Amino acid sequence: MTEHFQTIVIGAGSGGMTVAIGLAGLGKQVALIEGKHVGGDCTNVGCVPSKTLIHLAKNFKPGMNADDLLREVTRKRDALREKETEEVKHIENLTFIEGMAQFTAPKRLRVTHPDGSSHELTADNIVIATGARPRMIDIPGLPAERTLTNESLFDLTCLPKHLVIVGAGIIALEMAFAFQKLGSQVTMFALDKRPMMTAIPEASEAIQNELERRRITTYYNATAQSFDESTRTLTIQQDEQLITLHNVDKVLVAIGRVRNLDSLGLEQAGVKVDPRLGILVNSYGETNVKGVYAIGDVTPTSAFTHSANAQGRRVVQRIAFPYLPLAKKEPLFPNATFSDPEVAAVGLTQKELAEYCHPQIIKRIRVDFKTHTDRGYTDGIENGFIIVDAVRLTGQILHATVVGPSASEIISFFTLAISQKISLYKIYRLVYPYPTFSSGILKVADFFMRDTLPNLGKELAAYLKYRFAKPSP
Amino acid sequence: MTEHFQTIVIGAGSGGMTVAIGLAGLGKQVALIEGKHVGGDCTNVGCVPSKTLIHLAKNFKPGMNADDLLREVTRKRDALREKETEEVKHIENLTFIEGMAQFTAPKRLRVTHPDGSSHELTADNIVIATGARPRMIDIPGLPAERTLTNESLFDLTCLPKHLVIVGAGIIALEMAFAFQKLGSQVTMFALDKRPMMTAIPEASEAIQNELERRRITTYYNATAQSFDESTRTLTIQQDEQLITLHNVDKVLVAIGRVRNLDSLGLEQAGVKVDPRLGILVNSYGETNVKGVYAIGDVTPTSAFTHSANAQGRRVVQRIAFPYLPLAKKEPLFPNATFSDPEVAAVGLTQKELAEYCHPQIIKRIRVDFKTHTDRGYTDGIENGFIIVDAVRLTGQILHATVVGPSASEIISFFTLAISQKISLYKIYRLVYPYPTFSSGILKVADFFMRDTLPNLGKELAAYLKYRFAKPSP
Repeated sequence: MTEHFQTIVIGAGSGGMTVAIGLAGLGKQVALIEGKHVGGDCTNVGCVPSKTLIHLAKNFKPGMNADDLLREVTRKRDALREKETEEVKHIENLTFIEGMAQFTAPKRLRVTHPDGSSHELTADNIVIATGARPRMIDIPGLPAERTLTNESLFDLTCLPKHLVIVGAGIIALEMAFAFQKLGSQVTMFALDKRPMMTAIPEASEAIQNELERRRITTYYNATAQSFDESTRTLTIQQDEQLITLHNVDKVLVAIGRVRNLDSLGLEQAGVKVDPRLGILVNSYGETNVKGVYAIGDVTPTSAFTHSANAQGRRVVQRIAFPYLPLAKKEPLFPNATFSDPEVAAVGLTQKELAEYCHPQIIKRIRVDFKTHTDRGYTDGIENGFIIVDAVRLTGQILHATVVGPSASEIISFFTLAISQKISLYKIYRLVYPYPTFSSGILKVADFFMRDTLPNLGKELAAYLKYRFAKPSP
Repeated sequence: MTEHFQTIVIGAGSGGMTVAIGLAGLGKQVALIEGKHVGGDCTNVGCVPSKTLIHLAKNFKPGMNADDLLREVTRKRDALREKETEEVKHIENLTFIEGMAQFTAPKRLRVTHPDGSSHELTADNIVIATGARPRMIDIPGLPAERTLTNESLFDLTCLPKHLVIVGAGIIALEMAFAFQKLGSQVTMFALDKRPMMTAIPEASEAIQNELERRRITTYYNATAQSFDESTRTLTIQQDEQLITLHNVDKVLVAIGRVRNLDSLGLEQAGVKVDPRLGILVNSYGETNVKGVYAIGDVTPTSAFTHSANAQGRRVVQRIAFPYLPLAKKEPLFPNATFSDPEVAAVGLTQKELAEYCHPQIIKRIRVDFKTHTDRGYTDGIENGFIIVDAVRLTGQILHATVVGPSASEIISFFTLAISQKISLYKIYRLVYPYPTFSSGILKVADFFMRDTLPNLGKELAAYLKYRFAKPSP
């Protein structure tokens, strides 16, 4: 028997749930297929347990039991998972199906259930939201029980005395700071040449300073060689040198993600996949096959829960209100890393800036919390700043990076300012509560004005000269 | 000998410093007169020491010494004071004068120096920025050495075991939470009927819940009766009942502020003063006397450092660039209280809303962090929310209050949105980093849309009917 739905969503992660619940709420008949856990990475092995851990670690005090804390993380995660699983089974117009889905035709899926049985489903629209899984490496000699990824990390019941982290990206850094606070000795190594390669170098520098201040040992341009279980020694290679790390309890591998596309049978649907970028979609998640959508980690868009949600919201709009015109541009996707200090950014990347703008048209403004804001002084912030790249003369903001306490909250001010094209002249006129970190935003505007107003002639000339000039190759 | 200046600023607090340093930087000859400490309340007895204390208290752990921490607050405060005092003496075009100033004519002042000598100064412009001091009450039997105000609080070298706080406003609440964290027993009483009377009742409720959760005892509608030093017992009266508070070490009086206007000789200058509101000024700080300005606590504007600074910046503009047109409106003044949770608000007050808007034109939206955001769940936030009052149908934001972590940072998003008239429709389209508290802003927009879109006809009718309707008296 073949069941038919208005929309089938494959994957009950945050992106898939946004589409399924959104469309069901609008009266569409929706099927939601999930092979593992409702809530996807975010609830189960991502944001929710990691932020719970980060929050508890921040308030961790001597005398507390770190193992209890790890169990509390698992408990909170499980409670939310159960709640979400129950909820998703009781939503009107939504049929929740456990199993693995595979295309047999563009609008047809075969679902294989946990008991081995299978059946076929058809739909007007199919949304691929199967996410990604951790990329693994093979370290000769390292036993599986010592190897962690974000998928097994939050089932830990016992704090590793010495945690080695492979990678220097978001997950690696968030966990490095959290486990250091809980009392683990933390060593990080990565093939990258600096931490957080996706951020501007100034952010990497701030993070590196804090890593060192907290005695987290780091090795860059480094690869794993082998592990000796008898002495629990991990050998890594940096440049030409071999380095040995002793008494290693666990190794967390956090070197990136692999898209979950292999078992989907995309070739049966004719959906185009780029081996590097994933499923190619437009700003409304539409693939090359009409009626087949993709969102979240399987697409080239930034691999954040909020990006998947935002894409999901747009797919809901596209499916439910197809007569509404397509917006020309993707929304701005801010990003945030919950390291300590936090790092958040929005707007053009440095690569995009270099590609689209002549360097002479950009004014970079840096405000350091410690020296330029009283809050940085009262709170003793050594490594924190706001960096803004703005168009000279006009004060239009192109990019902002915030490093420091509440950076992940402050960044939304810039998302609003950039998306609504609010210039630094207008931002200069606002009043910011004292003493906050956001009052640093006023300093950014101050510095821009101080640079611009006394030199209006020069600024205008430069603006006219470089506005449409091509950046040098 | 009479010295003449382009501008004389009376009071080296944050407002006065903004004007003096701003004008001196623009090449004007400025005199800055201060009778006490450079930096005014903010540096010496306000934001700087209080936020240092709040920050240290937040990270206070068992085994640390609270007395050391109090001395660290004093040390950091003194270091900043010394730095600011030194700096102010070495600014080009700025003459720093120690002494008390008194008008002898609209543009003429007599300054009495600490050694008793005096001399006269004249100026084209005089800016009054003398601030305010704590309002005192007399509690019969309470010795002076047990009485604290914000002016003596930050010289404490020893943690009070039992601290009684009179008042339930910003200073009272900030210090209640901070001293509780350091280990003091804290009791609060106030004539007010709830904490933080200037905030919306929902914020008071959240604060009250947290006070109770932290075992801070509170009495409202209560007044002090007497103190018995032999038993260190403070008797207060609540309604008809007498209540005794035992083993009281210190009593912090935080019941409001008195403007420093008495010794200024304002009548010699002819400057109009309202006994309740202070010196009356327009949005550029101009008093009724041409060339005489007033800013900060001596004016009716909200008594925050950032308000004084904002006024100061406008006075600088008015004096240095008098040909620039006057802006019609005052900027929006946000406010923030660094209690735990923080409380911040911007936009129309509830009184102004009731005065200008028919209740049917306003849609109030409340998003609770705990139930509506995942970050509230991971961080276990019991008392935190965003409340927005918006115009129905149009989604124009009139007021926002945020209670919770980073409220003082998140509020600037709303300052920007309100001042630039960015509606909830536009805010709905933004992407917010996950999992943050600011993603609650998206929920606000979601709730507005969910309420509005399916009922467009009804909403339009109500909008047309009530848009220009008078609120009932």
